[in-house]
Amino acid sequence: MCSNSRSDEQKCLFCNYERARHICENQYAYAIFDNFPVNRGHVLVIPKRHFESFFEASEEEITAIYSLIKEVKERVDWDYRPLGYNIGINIGKTAGQTIAHVHIHIIPRYEGDVDNPRGGIRNLKKALIEYNG
Amino acid sequence: MCSNSRSDEQKCLFCNYERARHICENQYAYAIFDNFPVNRGHVLVIPKRHFESFFEASEEEITAIYSLIKEVKERVDWDYRPLGYNIGINIGKTAGQTIAHVHIHIIPRYEGDVDNPRGGIRNLKKALIEYNG
Repeated sequence: MCSNSRSDEQKCLFCNYERARHICENQYAYAIFDNFPVNRGHVLVIPKRHFESFFEASEEEITAIYSLIKEVKERVDWDYRPLGYNIGINIGKTAGQTIAHVHIHIIPRYEGDVDNPRGGIRNLKKALIEYNG
Repeated sequence: MCSNSRSDEQKCLFCNYERARHICENQYAYAIFDNFPVNRGHVLVIPKRHFESFFEASEEEITAIYSLIKEVKERVDWDYRPLGYNIGINIGKTAGQTIAHVHIHIIPRYEGDVDNPRGGIRNLKKALIEYNG
């Protein structure tokens, strides 16, 4: 089923995101700060083309997204000095995807932000569990 | 700091993983079932080259990893019929990375496996939080 109609794009938050708020961008993707950050410096990397599932990305989009992720990391390293990162993607409503336009979470991690960091994405601080974004 | 020494590779679980247990593989990456699955069909996609940080992957490795992720999704869709997926990567000990060789979590999601799926990777079921892998 194709969700890539013109009317989907007209309604889509990420198809209409204010360009002045882009942190950085390239031909196929852009990056913004998450409006409901789960940690300082939480960024979203978003393909410019409107599509819902990460599994639909083209090879050009994947390499552009990866390039932008690395650019974001350099910027966030400089500005926030995190000690690690979690990268996360939700695919489908059952997996928590609430906006039907692919977005990749880049979440910086800091010493002591959870009691025990083992478990990674499966063990983020309680605030993350209360997050509804 | 380069962690890519011969002795690191000799000790590394993912450099020495039994090939008979690979689900699928390509030139640059292979996939296995997670030994401590947080849901039915939880798979790890792992580059064949030994390196610690996802940010160190080459463009060839990224496209191979993405290709394998899509192959895993087809297989898991067929075998387990999930309704969605979370993809997660932990980079650094502070982010929960416990094995110093990049691995990407592909976690199928099912109806009712959390009370409210909003929040995605930030809201996995309690079992995930108790997970120590």
